[in-house]
Amino acid sequence: MAKKIVIIGGVAGGATAATRLRRLSEEDEIILLEKGEYISFANCGLPYHVGEVIKERESLLLQTVAGMSSQYGLDVRNFSEVTAIHPTEKTVTVTNHKTGKVYDESFDELIISTGAKAIVPAIDGLENAKNVFSLRNIPDMDLIKTYITRNKVKTATVIGGGFIGLEMMENLSELGINVQLVEMAPQVMPNIDFEMAQMLHAQINMHGVKLILNDGLKELRNNGHELVLTSGQVLATDMTILSIGVLPENTLAKQCGIELGFKGGIKVDTQMRTNFAHIYAIGDVIEVTDSVSGEATNIPLAWPANRQGRLVADIINGLPAKYPGTQGTSVAKVFELTAASTGNSERILKKQGIEYQAIHIHPNSHAGYYPGAAPIALKLLFAQNGKILGAQAIGTEGVAKRIDVISTAMKFGAKAPDLAAIELAYAPPYSSAKDPVNMLGYTADNIVNGKVKTFQWSEVDSLKEQGAYFLDVREDFELLTGRIGGSVEIPLNQLRQHLVEVPKDQTIYVYCQVGLRGYNAARILMQHGYSVKNLDGGYKTYKNSKY
Amino acid sequence: MAKKIVIIGGVAGGATAATRLRRLSEEDEIILLEKGEYISFANCGLPYHVGEVIKERESLLLQTVAGMSSQYGLDVRNFSEVTAIHPTEKTVTVTNHKTGKVYDESFDELIISTGAKAIVPAIDGLENAKNVFSLRNIPDMDLIKTYITRNKVKTATVIGGGFIGLEMMENLSELGINVQLVEMAPQVMPNIDFEMAQMLHAQINMHGVKLILNDGLKELRNNGHELVLTSGQVLATDMTILSIGVLPENTLAKQCGIELGFKGGIKVDTQMRTNFAHIYAIGDVIEVTDSVSGEATNIPLAWPANRQGRLVADIINGLPAKYPGTQGTSVAKVFELTAASTGNSERILKKQGIEYQAIHIHPNSHAGYYPGAAPIALKLLFAQNGKILGAQAIGTEGVAKRIDVISTAMKFGAKAPDLAAIELAYAPPYSSAKDPVNMLGYTADNIVNGKVKTFQWSEVDSLKEQGAYFLDVREDFELLTGRIGGSVEIPLNQLRQHLVEVPKDQTIYVYCQVGLRGYNAARILMQHGYSVKNLDGGYKTYKNSKY
Ligand SMILES: Cc1cc2nc3c(=O)[nH]c(=O)nc-3n(C[C@H](O)[C@H](O)[C@H](O)COP(=O)(O)OP(=O)(O)OC[C@H]3O[C@@H](n4cnc5c(N)ncnc54)[C@H](O)[C@@H]3O)c2cc1C
Ligand SMILES: Cc1cc2nc3c(=O)[nH]c(=O)nc-3n(C[C@H](O)[C@H](O)[C@H](O)COP(=O)(O)OP(=O)(O)OC[C@H]3O[C@@H](n4cnc5c(N)ncnc54)[C@H](O)[C@@H]3O)c2cc1C
Ligand SMILES: CC(C)(COP(=O)(O)OP(=O)(O)OC[C@H]1O[C@@H](n2cnc3c(N)ncnc32)[C@H](O)[C@@H]1OP(=O)(O)O)[C@@H](O)C(=O)NCCC(=O)NCCS
Ligand SMILES: CC(C)(COP(=O)(O)OP(=O)(O)OC[C@H]1O[C@@H](n2cnc3c(N)ncnc32)[C@H](O)[C@@H]1OP(=O)(O)O)[C@@H](O)C(=O)NCCC(=O)NCCS
Repeated sequence: MAKKIVIIGGVAGGATAATRLRRLSEEDEIILLEKGEYISFANCGLPYHVGEVIKERESLLLQTVAGMSSQYGLDVRNFSEVTAIHPTEKTVTVTNHKTGKVYDESFDELIISTGAKAIVPAIDGLENAKNVFSLRNIPDMDLIKTYITRNKVKTATVIGGGFIGLEMMENLSELGINVQLVEMAPQVMPNIDFEMAQMLHAQINMHGVKLILNDGLKELRNNGHELVLTSGQVLATDMTILSIGVLPENTLAKQCGIELGFKGGIKVDTQMRTNFAHIYAIGDVIEVTDSVSGEATNIPLAWPANRQGRLVADIINGLPAKYPGTQGTSVAKVFELTAASTGNSERILKKQGIEYQAIHIHPNSHAGYYPGAAPIALKLLFAQNGKILGAQAIGTEGVAKRIDVISTAMKFGAKAPDLAAIELAYAPPYSSAKDPVNMLGYTADNIVNGKVKTFQWSEVDSLKEQGAYFLDVREDFELLTGRIGGSVEIPLNQLRQHLVEVPKDQTIYVYCQVGLRGYNAARILMQHGYSVKNLDGGYKTYKNSKY
Repeated sequence: MAKKIVIIGGVAGGATAATRLRRLSEEDEIILLEKGEYISFANCGLPYHVGEVIKERESLLLQTVAGMSSQYGLDVRNFSEVTAIHPTEKTVTVTNHKTGKVYDESFDELIISTGAKAIVPAIDGLENAKNVFSLRNIPDMDLIKTYITRNKVKTATVIGGGFIGLEMMENLSELGINVQLVEMAPQVMPNIDFEMAQMLHAQINMHGVKLILNDGLKELRNNGHELVLTSGQVLATDMTILSIGVLPENTLAKQCGIELGFKGGIKVDTQMRTNFAHIYAIGDVIEVTDSVSGEATNIPLAWPANRQGRLVADIINGLPAKYPGTQGTSVAKVFELTAASTGNSERILKKQGIEYQAIHIHPNSHAGYYPGAAPIALKLLFAQNGKILGAQAIGTEGVAKRIDVISTAMKFGAKAPDLAAIELAYAPPYSSAKDPVNMLGYTADNIVNGKVKTFQWSEVDSLKEQGAYFLDVREDFELLTGRIGGSVEIPLNQLRQHLVEVPKDQTIYVYCQVGLRGYNAARILMQHGYSVKNLDGGYKTYKNSKY
């Protein structure tokens, strides 16, 4: 029996659902309603067309209305905004913005994939500013590009250091524009932790971007050409990009009694069903379950939207399918660096009161003796029982690869020490015989099995104040990169001969550059009866945090 | 109670075991016996120093005898060849090649990590040829480099197209030497299948290497300056690299009654124990269990050697540890291409009589609209119950990443359709919202769940002979890349209107460029009651196989 299926929103979630629906049924009537001109475009490419990295505007239009209609036999209607959903009547009210026509359309099944909307704060001076933009779609992008060219923009300010903010910062900067990035939090990229984000801060400054942390936009003056920050600082700017985050585009849902959850995200079950049996919701507009913590959250990313689009089509066609939750695996390019993560950050774990252990390592992206190798800062978070809670990585090469491998391991329930057992492809241009992910596994194994105790970069300063005994096992020449003042220095390869000099009546806080020799030193000391802790991630992690 | 542990072989497996042994016990006596001058060197880097990609010879020496001794408190003895093992006496006989001294050394536990030896065939003329080399270690490399410089080598021949052969081919070629590669099989890289290897053949020829397949070395003439092949063809050459494979370096083991298995590999249990309770063996010298088939095999790679080195140290120290088997995940650079694989190839599956399904896809390495994207040829092999049996990938970017992810999924028991559910990091420079690995999962899902039937590139020619009905759903302009002669052409977006032209009384063999539109066409046809099969991997896979 043919069904009539209406989809609201014609991009990531909506378009994906539509094509799968058609593949599963030739006879169903499938109507795709999109309020904008474009369907199925590459939202994620928008910043790069602003930066002229992606040269052709057309390349962002993955499917046209005509193409989607003919290839998939869909009824695709652009310029068609749904203004109301009537769950009991099983109809939606549509306004065609091209013709002005308003009509009701009935459905057997309805899919809401309306996405998210940029948060626009209530700030004085915003209404008079014609130079403030958000970036969500093609028209937004066109506006920004036109404004830059017409007004010969020399200075731009990005408010908000999340994914889109960072991408806009990079792309505006690549155009030769002076960029200022203002972020209210002490760090950019909220999905990674502070000591990791510090590497991005260094990179951002190195590229000449003026980075202002711990400060927010309070007021716009002079038609948006002056920005007053919370601190009182005033910035001159030719234009401003507002990217302080997004919220579920839930207006329709809210009005018709669809149940909302976390920050207004539509509540759905594991089959993407709302509280109305024939109404489904997917993508940025929904609340998802954080796979790690089990808590409700919003994760506005393209992977979940595409995945849910596929699954909802299966579910509507009676196939067994469910969406268990989202890990939040993500990646961003920040100039030469890549930053990626999966699962929860330390900040989130703390907030949720989940017990965890942290590991930081700095292995090379591939064999050190093969040209182009560069260290990756890798962080792993795991529970005492070994369950992997999250991972973060920053570097120039092979960063997404390692996070993808860990994300895969998490998906299938691997424990942290199991990462050592994953057979990863090795030849010198690609990795090491023990891949960085394996190295995380070995390091975790030693912690889980009591072979070493560690202390964290964040504990160093207070330990120092308390007069702790720091033992630096690096070689002389390395001390030039900096040291923890007051440390006793005994290079690892002389440690056995100098044990008598190390006091037994207090904990020895040992460290090296990245943690490896410190660990070896700790093993020596432990077996000689010392109480010892190794600085996780070594002096390098501590130093990164101090940037 | 302190143990005395003797290790034979001081490189990948042996050195790794030694350092871990020390970290686990400060009091054990650990003696590392290495017959050569160097320990702990980067075997895998050797070809790249020949090619001057790795500039510094020293960078290949990861640890020196002095360094290892002082840092780890080990008794490292180079130039020390073990000439006999006495299992009952628990001693080994050692010859010091520097001093000429011969002595017995006792042990409580013995680890054999003697590696593999290059196969040198019994061929006429070999004994008189001073220009034929194998590459296993630093002295071999030095000899090759010196010979090239001294003799101003212009033409070199590599016999054998496995990993090392291909690496030598590339590196000699990068030096500006004319290279000929001779391989007895119909393809290079035995771990991947023919239609995949054809992409490498194209690449190799493109770089001006003379590739001779299906032919072997039969005789050397003129002091090795003329090579006579099985076919009768005669090649002139200034030098020859023999890389036709390796065999376990099992002489010691064989002589003392250690049980040998597959191709002479030492048989060990999952705790690396030989048939003598206190004698362990690891690395290239052992027989391992193929994780996919459960059959015995040899997998001479660095990852297993390093992993087993770590584990054997744990086992000797009474920690719970075992080595379940090897997947054979591997990667090689072949000029601009990367080729990687994990698990079993189709050839192996056939040989072992294991039922399988194959999928070929050609997704972009990252979003097509972001610069630098290039297709990856991906092949997945899986059982009817979904169990993943193997995967292969060739491309210019992101190849190892995809194989690593699949290897991880296999490790933790994922089924082929589960690959669709792995949350992989996406931003345009790195991937697509559906990563290539996800796409394999979706494609597998459709096969496992009967949404489509496929036929393979290898069936095309015989189907054509049988007069099968081929339906080409590509656009006109694509037909220039070639077509299956006699196909009926109806572009996908016109298919619904032209259904009457398609006969219902025979199977429709549909195809497009890579399989995606063919799949969509198959879905349309199936639902209209046709019997239909889609060409897996599309015309591109078929064409690749024809190179
Ligand atoms: C600039 C930018 C960069 C991004 N980069 C990345 C990235 O690198 N990686 C990543 O994973 N994610 C990225 N994202 C996020 C990703 O694009 C979204 O997660 C994804 O598109 C969400 O899919 P969706 O279907 O929920 O919503 P969308 O794809 O946003 O589609 C929603 C559509 O619904 C339409 N709509 C809304 N209300 C109505 C209505 N009432 N009637 C009709 N139509 C309506 C909207 O016009 C819109 O076209 C980026 C997003 C942006 C804006
Ligand atoms: C040129 C080359 C390139 C390679 N590239 C890769 C690659 O890219 N990726 C990959 O995964 N693997 C690669 N490998 C394979 C990898 O190096 C091996 O799998 C690994 O080194 C095996 O470790 P092992 O400890 O078993 O043996 P080895 O590392 O070979 O060490 C064995 C040692 O034992 C010594 N020995 C032998 N007999 C005796 C004796 N009787 N007494 C004392 N000492 C003895 C030998 O002199 C040798 O030094 C490559 C190998 C070579 C030669
Ligand atoms: C492009 C778009 C319409 C998706 O269309 P789609 O038909 O699902 O196309 P895809 O290219 O993703 O192909 C996936 C389908 O082809 C199949 N497929 C892919 N490669 C194949 C091959 N070589 N052989 C056979 N089948 C193949 C997959 O199995 C899948 O089908 P299924 O869902 O029925 O299992 C939709 O994703 C979209 O609008 N994207 C743009 C918006 C967006 O995602 N934005 C955020 C990121 S920028
Ligand atoms: C170099 C070699 C001696 C290994 O020495 P190693 O001490 O195991 O050194 P690695 O650098 O691999 O470090 C691994 C150890 O450091 C630990 N480690 C690594 N990074 C760490 C960090 N940042 N903090 C704490 N511990 C760390 C690991 O847990 C592991 O210790 P464990 O085995 O006790 O768990 C040996 O691998 C070798 O000889 N390699 C060359 C030969 C070879 O592999 N050839 C084939 C490939 S070219």
